Amino acid sequence: MKIHNFSAGPSILPKEVMQKASLAVKELDDSGLSLIEISHRSKNFVDIMDEACDKALNITKLRGKGYKALFLQGGASQQFLMSAYNLLEKKAGFINSGTWSTKAIKEAQLLGEVIEVASSKDKNFNYIPKTNSIPADLDYLHLTTNNTIFGTQFKEIPETLVPLVADMSSDIFSTNFDYSKFSLFYAGAQKNLGPAGTTLVIVKEDILGKVTRKIPSILDYSIQIKSGSMFNTPPVFSVYTCLLTLRWIEDNGGLDEIGKKNKIKADLIYDEIDKNSKFIGFADKESRSTMNATFNLSEPSLADSFDTLCQNAGISGIKGHRSVGGYRASMYNALSISSVKALVECMQILEQKSK
Amino acid sequence: MKIHNFSAGPSILPKEVMQKASLAVKELDDSGLSLIEISHRSKNFVDIMDEACDKALNITKLRGKGYKALFLQGGASQQFLMSAYNLLEKKAGFINSGTWSTKAIKEAQLLGEVIEVASSKDKNFNYIPKTNSIPADLDYLHLTTNNTIFGTQFKEIPETLVPLVADMSSDIFSTNFDYSKFSLFYAGAQKNLGPAGTTLVIVKEDILGKVTRKIPSILDYSIQIKSGSMFNTPPVFSVYTCLLTLRWIEDNGGLDEIGKKNKIKADLIYDEIDKNSKFIGFADKESRSTMNATFNLSEPSLADSFDTLCQNAGISGIKGHRSVGGYRASMYNALSISSVKALVECMQILEQKSK
Repeated sequence: MKIHNFSAGPSILPKEVMQKASLAVKELDDSGLSLIEISHRSKNFVDIMDEACDKALNITKLRGKGYKALFLQGGASQQFLMSAYNLLEKKAGFINSGTWSTKAIKEAQLLGEVIEVASSKDKNFNYIPKTNSIPADLDYLHLTTNNTIFGTQFKEIPETLVPLVADMSSDIFSTNFDYSKFSLFYAGAQKNLGPAGTTLVIVKEDILGKVTRKIPSILDYSIQIKSGSMFNTPPVFSVYTCLLTLRWIEDNGGLDEIGKKNKIKADLIYDEIDKNSKFIGFADKESRSTMNATFNLSEPSLADSFDTLCQNAGISGIKGHRSVGGYRASMYNALSISSVKALVECMQILEQKSK
Repeated sequence: MKIHNFSAGPSILPKEVMQKASLAVKELDDSGLSLIEISHRSKNFVDIMDEACDKALNITKLRGKGYKALFLQGGASQQFLMSAYNLLEKKAGFINSGTWSTKAIKEAQLLGEVIEVASSKDKNFNYIPKTNSIPADLDYLHLTTNNTIFGTQFKEIPETLVPLVADMSSDIFSTNFDYSKFSLFYAGAQKNLGPAGTTLVIVKEDILGKVTRKIPSILDYSIQIKSGSMFNTPPVFSVYTCLLTLRWIEDNGGLDEIGKKNKIKADLIYDEIDKNSKFIGFADKESRSTMNATFNLSEPSLADSFDTLCQNAGISGIKGHRSVGGYRASMYNALSISSVKALVECMQILEQKSK
């Protein structure tokens, strides 16, 4: 039986990416050696790292615009700390749209003053807050473009003259955003990009070098840039698999085509949530995420029936996060339209059966 | 042709480990899903993490002695910072035995006073320095048990009452050390343990919680312990592959047997270095590493001949580090005795040919 993998992350990757990654662990191309036993300073691996960084800049249309791409370790959580270390001299602004923003705020507070420019905490983060006025004296404004747990996503990026920093872990590469609005954005790989264990960081070089503190080497973007993401041994398997996914994105028409497919998937599920009497969407309609649809049953007593229906249809990973409950269907790039249709069918059967 | 992989790291892993890791990227056991697309909170992965931590404590004979094992990200370089963040309140001592010790010192200096208790810098780190007196008021004493670049290794661990902290990246699990001498030790996986991308940290809990500074969450051992190495998404592939290697160590007789085999390999190469007129060992005899043998040609003009001999024999990765020059044969656990014999044969042929 085909498994429809709606996991929130680590999550589904393109089948061919997983197959090629598996082969490389046995033997990288015709090198006679496994990907995981070669030196990261060998031409084989340096080429992999360079191509991955190039493709990340190409796909985001940032080539030649003063940006550098890095593949680092530690996940977005490490970037919460690293971005503040490198950029926070006096005061940073944050838009608090959920659990991950809240965590980012906590780490930045260790290094300077932090203000919440907007927050949706009053309604358990079920909407993207409006930012009416953004102080002009901020070192930067940080936002989380997509909130995996709550199923919300920024539809418009706030207009401001201060540098924008974004955690894009769960919607990077999901469509053709204007990435040039951001001075720094980062994404843990384990959604649209690759396996857990590496973090893509794209940073505009002109925002660096402005803080007066000494930055620990491993947390210093300038040092990481100078060493081509190889200040120390990089996570070779994760970076290689990210490269395979980036090639897959290009081979599948780039972010325009990816974005169209993601819209079809999101429309399918949200249409069903809205017309099906047995389900209630969690996120406000205008804040709905194309990546993670959050919803609850209108009658909690139907949970067993629905879970059985889903299980029999091979649907996996739709249990909602404990802070929201209910269900969460994560529909990252590699998830097929047919998987969403399979889930929608379960929702329809539930409604028919419960009439 | 069989390739004899003497790479300094990332480096050779047991063949069966690479094969099983490759299979898991295709499908983990009979789950229907790849290792890299499942949630790290799933029972499948939590079991992997738990078993890996258990095995690390079992193999080092530290179970029940107040230690915790963690699999983190960022390599030993991140531990240079993290250990200081968690332990350095006033003053730390370091034994400077090479490049990596020097880097560790640099990062610790950001957080407090650092003194060099001993150093072998005077002779380009070709020996392990003696530590005659260790101040009693240190928060901890840090050493690098094996120096990959220079091919030196501690044969005796300094006696002291202050907590010992060790970077064991390149000789962890190479023999049955008395690991209980250390309060904290860590190792980037990419030598004796697994693929790059994770770092094993073993820490005695009673040394934590004694500094007054606020520690960033991701760098806080206590937070990492509380969350079972899952403060954020762990590098699932690297951790799983480490588990496979730990199982392999147990299945091959544990550290006693591994240590015996490593001694045979080291004796083979050092015997040849000492009796072959065309080679000169770099490291002092009493400081020689069982993991990395460093040596130079006595006549530099023989380089082309020797390189050709090695190439024809399938010997890979023996170029010395730029700070030492010459050759470095890294003989980690998974390297077979026959590979060392193949290298020794090339050295013998060179001597015969050049008579």
